[in-house]
Amino acid sequence: MQSFKELIAQFSQHFAQQHFPEEPAKLYKAASHILEIGGKRIRPVLCLMGNELFDELNPDAFHAASAIELFHNFTLIHDDIMDKAPLRRGKPTVHTVYGDTAAILSGDVMLITVYDRLNKVNAKYQKKLITVFNKAAVEVCEGQQLDMDFEDLQPEEVDYDKYVNMIGLKTSVLLAASLQLGAIIGGGSEGNQEHLYAFGKNVGIAFQIQDDYLDAFGDPEKFGKQQGGDILANKKTFLLLKAFELCNDAQKAELKALLASNPADKVERVLRIFRDCKVDKWAEKEKERFTTAAFSHLEKIAVLSNRKEPLKELADFLLNRQQ
Amino acid sequence: MQSFKELIAQFSQHFAQQHFPEEPAKLYKAASHILEIGGKRIRPVLCLMGNELFDELNPDAFHAASAIELFHNFTLIHDDIMDKAPLRRGKPTVHTVYGDTAAILSGDVMLITVYDRLNKVNAKYQKKLITVFNKAAVEVCEGQQLDMDFEDLQPEEVDYDKYVNMIGLKTSVLLAASLQLGAIIGGGSEGNQEHLYAFGKNVGIAFQIQDDYLDAFGDPEKFGKQQGGDILANKKTFLLLKAFELCNDAQKAELKALLASNPADKVERVLRIFRDCKVDKWAEKEKERFTTAAFSHLEKIAVLSNRKEPLKELADFLLNRQQ
Repeated sequence: MQSFKELIAQFSQHFAQQHFPEEPAKLYKAASHILEIGGKRIRPVLCLMGNELFDELNPDAFHAASAIELFHNFTLIHDDIMDKAPLRRGKPTVHTVYGDTAAILSGDVMLITVYDRLNKVNAKYQKKLITVFNKAAVEVCEGQQLDMDFEDLQPEEVDYDKYVNMIGLKTSVLLAASLQLGAIIGGGSEGNQEHLYAFGKNVGIAFQIQDDYLDAFGDPEKFGKQQGGDILANKKTFLLLKAFELCNDAQKAELKALLASNPADKVERVLRIFRDCKVDKWAEKEKERFTTAAFSHLEKIAVLSNRKEPLKELADFLLNRQQ
Repeated sequence: MQSFKELIAQFSQHFAQQHFPEEPAKLYKAASHILEIGGKRIRPVLCLMGNELFDELNPDAFHAASAIELFHNFTLIHDDIMDKAPLRRGKPTVHTVYGDTAAILSGDVMLITVYDRLNKVNAKYQKKLITVFNKAAVEVCEGQQLDMDFEDLQPEEVDYDKYVNMIGLKTSVLLAASLQLGAIIGGGSEGNQEHLYAFGKNVGIAFQIQDDYLDAFGDPEKFGKQQGGDILANKKTFLLLKAFELCNDAQKAELKALLASNPADKVERVLRIFRDCKVDKWAEKEKERFTTAAFSHLEKIAVLSNRKEPLKELADFLLNRQQ
């Protein structure tokens, strides 16, 4: 059993291969561009950890992990087109450099390549892997569609539970499925797989709540982002949506006016409303609620408790918990 | 063994199922839209015929055929975005009705669904099916990229052999792979699979040459399209590219001038140049060359010759040959 840092190193080595041929150059340069931007490689490592929770690392886990990382990068290429995003991790996005056509096609080719990787695993669990993977893959697309649908709504029109559902689909089901794919390869039982999946899904949502919280209330020096970036972008977040539930009418009217304008003290004033209606306290509790649910599922997985240490360590790291 | 018309009817019945859930509505209405536009269903029927060439129809051939038809429709959705096409078969394209975002995502979901279908087949040949399918799927994307790359070139700058290669990737490899997938399911040997693939690929290219020819020289009443539509759209076709090889300098200059303008008699004048430099005769021979190659591969497939009748009948139908 290895720490997630060791597994990241192992996966990175495995993944540092030539994934695509040279020609047509534009198509494959576009595809390689997104992979070179890099990323934390959390999802593939979850797959490896799911395997190691039950058994020694199997080479098939690296194939599944590569499939997951390629899929994640495919979604980034296509999402950036839809969001008209100029930058990702400070680098120009694929469609910005290579145009929409090559960006659409390079995403398509990457999605096809996902299944080349899933075609390398042992036939005895290939069907199950594809079934679990495809369910998550479709849900990620559904989550993106729902997110785009929400764009046309005002924040006060978005139902909170539907928002949680969308975030779950868009960001958490792939984390959860990554763990489950590893568990299948490691020989985990159906029941254990389900608990592991639920652990991943709840960690994902808790992480997103924390992300929204830190963007608003975090220490910009520690967090490494501009404070209130989401507020300045009028982004729908857990905090903003909940504020419209918790605020009184005067506060709601002020929030709406602030969303419709860009005063110099916009961040400060929105944060004051958030604090006045205790959205900050609510977010801490809501994050805790999902974190508790996550760890309760981890608890129920029937393996020796020391095998769960790397997963606990990773969740503590992601959720910024003091150990 | 059944005629291709009987097989089209059988496939259509199998394919007339609910392929997608209801929600998110925009995503799945977009996906269903392209399927409702319909089509000739040639590719899935080739898959069924590939199976029947070697053995009785296996239900797995219907799964593979559905996968192929879904893949083809995925390419139509994404290609129409790239081509900014307003209409397909006289109906508004997916992105025209539902916007680019839902069009990109519905194509993505359809591509994922392809592998749900390929996940239903017998495990004994699943890996081989995915390998053959994925090779063709990637090549179709490569062909589309090359086609888009050619858009930036003048017709006289396009190398004829590269153009044939592009057409092969964009339109023929999927026909060829459809036949091969069926052959794998039907238990055809590797050698027979290769000949069947080559038959399909050559028929595809011959068909494309014929398509270009008929657009220029066909009887509009019989062909059902405006005569010279490709010429009016300055489309790169087999005829136009070859004309730049066969013409003398004066004819080339006139062709270039015609491409850069839109005189009322453009079609007539381009056709006169085509006839003067004998591009029409060349196209007839070139179509015959690929047709002959196709039938020579069909000949070499080691099954009783009467099993090949439905394939011959379909090729004769597609290639408009007198029997």
